[in-house]
Amino acid sequence: MIERIAILGTGLLGASAGLALRAAGFHGDIVGWNRSAEGAQIALAYGAIDSIAEDPLQAARESQVVLLCVPIYATLDFMEKLAPVLGPGHLVTDVGSTKGQISAAAKRLFNTPERAAFLPGHPMAGKERGGAALGDATLFRGAVWLFTDDPDCKRSAHAAELVQGWRDWVGAMGSKAIDLDPARHDELVAWVSHLPQFVATALSALLQQEVGDAPELKDVGGRGLREMTRLGASPYSMWRDIAYTNTEAVADALHKLEQRIAHLRENLRTPELRDEFEQANKFRRE
Amino acid sequence: MIERIAILGTGLLGASAGLALRAAGFHGDIVGWNRSAEGAQIALAYGAIDSIAEDPLQAARESQVVLLCVPIYATLDFMEKLAPVLGPGHLVTDVGSTKGQISAAAKRLFNTPERAAFLPGHPMAGKERGGAALGDATLFRGAVWLFTDDPDCKRSAHAAELVQGWRDWVGAMGSKAIDLDPARHDELVAWVSHLPQFVATALSALLQQEVGDAPELKDVGGRGLREMTRLGASPYSMWRDIAYTNTEAVADALHKLEQRIAHLRENLRTPELRDEFEQANKFRRE
Repeated sequence: MIERIAILGTGLLGASAGLALRAAGFHGDIVGWNRSAEGAQIALAYGAIDSIAEDPLQAARESQVVLLCVPIYATLDFMEKLAPVLGPGHLVTDVGSTKGQISAAAKRLFNTPERAAFLPGHPMAGKERGGAALGDATLFRGAVWLFTDDPDCKRSAHAAELVQGWRDWVGAMGSKAIDLDPARHDELVAWVSHLPQFVATALSALLQQEVGDAPELKDVGGRGLREMTRLGASPYSMWRDIAYTNTEAVADALHKLEQRIAHLRENLRTPELRDEFEQANKFRRE
Repeated sequence: MIERIAILGTGLLGASAGLALRAAGFHGDIVGWNRSAEGAQIALAYGAIDSIAEDPLQAARESQVVLLCVPIYATLDFMEKLAPVLGPGHLVTDVGSTKGQISAAAKRLFNTPERAAFLPGHPMAGKERGGAALGDATLFRGAVWLFTDDPDCKRSAHAAELVQGWRDWVGAMGSKAIDLDPARHDELVAWVSHLPQFVATALSALLQQEVGDAPELKDVGGRGLREMTRLGASPYSMWRDIAYTNTEAVADALHKLEQRIAHLRENLRTPELRDEFEQANKFRRE
């Protein structure tokens, strides 16, 4: 029943979704829109979309499913603009990394009998660099795709079918769906996704300042250094919105890590260091 | 001229060195000794060594090159025991991760006309888990092998030949030799190796405490989480000696990181966050 999908935002995630849908056997139309025309052209050239929309709202109106693949505040903006122009025949879904504000906006703007359904989603997949040129049909394979939907998004039989249809495509793209409450989602990803990112950023920024100009550096650092700083390449443009929309949980996680590092530092020569290593070993075993 | 090598300590690095020497075409004898008999048996079974020595000092006496592949304090112990029983026909070298104390011991115990030569070495290669069973002939390929030698280690023509002979084998195993002053070595590796390790340990230990029992955790964490915590599996037994022998440099690096994370945390909603991301991006570009 899903014959036309509009992907609004054809960066890494949007382009990858287009490619993955094709690889999974989606034969309908995929229309794409991107803020920069160049990104849309690349997505088109790579076969991630079939055509470029001039007007994202019109492209949305002409599709059954609208996939928002833009940063969080841009997602919230699109939700405001799409809600009044779409109707019960549409499903809007997204890939935003925080779900509190998006789920609240969905409750306010969608999921009524006259309005489109909104299914908040978050694939746990990405790369440290963005852009359609890095689009990858296998990006979502083996990843978890988190959903934080309100039961109201399935209030009509038609909406329920669209929601199930999109979930089926997510499965076909190789992802495993997990359902979470929005608040629990934001708390959990603060620990397992946002904390690792901001630590990698702080570590990379510090290393740049302290040893960035050491001539031996590029050679000496091994796999551990590369892995611990890979996320240091992540763009501010994406993470700014995450920092703004999950500030409290991220700040709490960062503060606890500061205390944990200080504790380790104060115990470099005591048996307490053994306990820290054992606790860390346990995390990797489980 | 190197016809017999004694590898004292046939864990991951020792076993890998034996396998890599063979792969690089070393046709002489390789005798191995290990504190646990089981580790030596595994190294023998995997072809990393030709025979197991009962007495490490005798094995050293019967070899031209002695490769110490044990933790740092065990290396320092062996240096005390080997110095009086070896002579100018021997070269002792090691793989220890800090070089200040080992280089000082080398100056005190070796490199005189009556004594063996000592070449302090440190391959920037490893895995987060140890043991002969993970031994890998390609472990050193593409890695840097740091040396912090005293010019006195080449005081005789014979010693100079042994040193050059071992350096040639390091090259044949695929590593690139870089020479550093011992103090500079310890400062640099505090930043690019020890800091990433201790941060991964603190992060993994914290995550174990905070979300270790979350049922969704194993599924939700993606590549970023896996990479940022991989070193969390590293054993205390190896890192204890590093923490003890490079305490000041490691504590300084950890303290600076605590401050950097706090700065980022306090600026999650200010333009300063952009500067941190840009500085981090620069580290990954260069």
